[in-house]
Amino acid sequence: MENREIIIDLLGSDLGPGEMLEGARMVLESFPGISLALAGPRALIEAAGLPEGRYRILEADSTVTNLDNPVEAFYRKEPVSVFIALEEASRCDGVLGVISAGNTGALFAGAIRYLLEDRTARPCMAAILPTTEGGFTCLVDTGASIDCGPAQLVEFAHRGSDFMRRLYKIDSPRVGLLSNGAEPTKGNKLVKEAHALLAKDEGINFIGNIEGNKTLSGLCDVLVCEGFAGNQVLKNSEGMAVNLITEIVKYGKTHGVPAAKEIVGYLMSRFDFASLGAGIMLGTRKLVLKNRGSCRRDAVRNAARILVNLADNKSLYESVN
Amino acid sequence: MENREIIIDLLGSDLGPGEMLEGARMVLESFPGISLALAGPRALIEAAGLPEGRYRILEADSTVTNLDNPVEAFYRKEPVSVFIALEEASRCDGVLGVISAGNTGALFAGAIRYLLEDRTARPCMAAILPTTEGGFTCLVDTGASIDCGPAQLVEFAHRGSDFMRRLYKIDSPRVGLLSNGAEPTKGNKLVKEAHALLAKDEGINFIGNIEGNKTLSGLCDVLVCEGFAGNQVLKNSEGMAVNLITEIVKYGKTHGVPAAKEIVGYLMSRFDFASLGAGIMLGTRKLVLKNRGSCRRDAVRNAARILVNLADNKSLYESVN
Repeated sequence: MENREIIIDLLGSDLGPGEMLEGARMVLESFPGISLALAGPRALIEAAGLPEGRYRILEADSTVTNLDNPVEAFYRKEPVSVFIALEEASRCDGVLGVISAGNTGALFAGAIRYLLEDRTARPCMAAILPTTEGGFTCLVDTGASIDCGPAQLVEFAHRGSDFMRRLYKIDSPRVGLLSNGAEPTKGNKLVKEAHALLAKDEGINFIGNIEGNKTLSGLCDVLVCEGFAGNQVLKNSEGMAVNLITEIVKYGKTHGVPAAKEIVGYLMSRFDFASLGAGIMLGTRKLVLKNRGSCRRDAVRNAARILVNLADNKSLYESVN
Repeated sequence: MENREIIIDLLGSDLGPGEMLEGARMVLESFPGISLALAGPRALIEAAGLPEGRYRILEADSTVTNLDNPVEAFYRKEPVSVFIALEEASRCDGVLGVISAGNTGALFAGAIRYLLEDRTARPCMAAILPTTEGGFTCLVDTGASIDCGPAQLVEFAHRGSDFMRRLYKIDSPRVGLLSNGAEPTKGNKLVKEAHALLAKDEGINFIGNIEGNKTLSGLCDVLVCEGFAGNQVLKNSEGMAVNLITEIVKYGKTHGVPAAKEIVGYLMSRFDFASLGAGIMLGTRKLVLKNRGSCRRDAVRNAARILVNLADNKSLYESVN
């Protein structure tokens, strides 16, 4: 059997490398056929006592914080963990992908330098969200490309379509454009211009504008939007799910409704964005998953599961607990 | 007791004037101290058999559709119901406000012509959304001002603050700015520029950026955003609430959980945007409420209740069923 390796950037997350290392341990326990390359401080990694022979160390003591300029970080003398991780991914065939919970700007700068696909101008960030019909919609971009132009939105449509074609075997993924009204005349300047470009692009199965209340309705396989708006959709969907679930928990307690717990459990299995929610970079030669900065160990394991499922051409969230 | 009148524009809604007239009937039944002025076709209104002495007719047979240019509609020979309604509101002291479910562009054009406050450059559209803390946040703008500049966002902050000061007796309403990150450096170009202006405006209690997952968290009393993004927040919040509630209904049926019904009822009372959801125009001398085009009769009654509560200085949704 071929070597299947996942690279984990241990530095830059809010909870620190210890939590990421515990995530790495969970990955090794969950996937016997997977080995890891861990980018971070050697002493810390060795002290974690992970199973011998299942991991190797990519030594790096430096990281990029939210206060650093990501591009300037390329000129540092000391190795930066996220760059080491991405460079290694570009060199090694057996690598399924890279997982990082660090600075998004640095992850993009590194991905552009080491992993950019030939046909792509700039990678974008997607989220695969559960729809009410039971399927998934690829939301792109979710916040990596702010203030972008109409041509970039068309590129998002292509990259999202490629992804859904590959992942879900959808021949001709339906592409919707996020707008403030369903009619083609609705939208801001950017959306109107993108609408015209998408409508005449023969490589895209464009179905028109999608309103904000239909984002998770399953009407489209790919939902295209500029990063600022996409970030609102992603975070608002998550926030509303949390709000309603919290309300049910409170109601169940104060009114003595034991069944509330069962319902909460069901909703969590369908709409728990925190455990579903690794961002997926599109437009790179290797898969790059971005966990949120505050991610816990199980989010690292879930990201690894996404990589394994993608490599095996399975549905993204199959057997996510 | 003074004359208290509400003006209803009967034309332009998706379900037609018949449904609006049934809404008018509900208003008269619910509020004995209120009389109505109904803008629409005389024959239709007379045929509805509403209680004599409780209403008067503002005759108008013409409306502005989504295909019309709202400003050109001013030059028509035949009277346009929404303009007639707004002009009448500007003339009569006893009018609490205007309710319309017609074209938003026409409503704005008419409001600017007949009801604009001296200090305001352009009205904006707000929604008063329930927060998880039990209070309300004024989201402004929700889609009327697309592609606006940073100075307009500052004006939204002022108008929203005025409204929350008046409505909820909050001395110094906390103003948040919708962004893609909490740090002041996060945002698109517009948000960064607005952030700088808001921070130095002494008339605004600016608390900084708010992320999309915190929109309904109660962190701020006024949430300022450009209309396209605000439209996403409003519609996405509504869509997610509908999605989760629908899932609970389905789960309750397929798994035989009778308590699901009770939980759904509770959530509907907290998050039913369709019945809460009239848009409130800010920056006008009289209150103007915009029901959605697809509104049913009870939404007309709920809008009237908002007007009555505002006139009585009560909380907006008090005793909304």
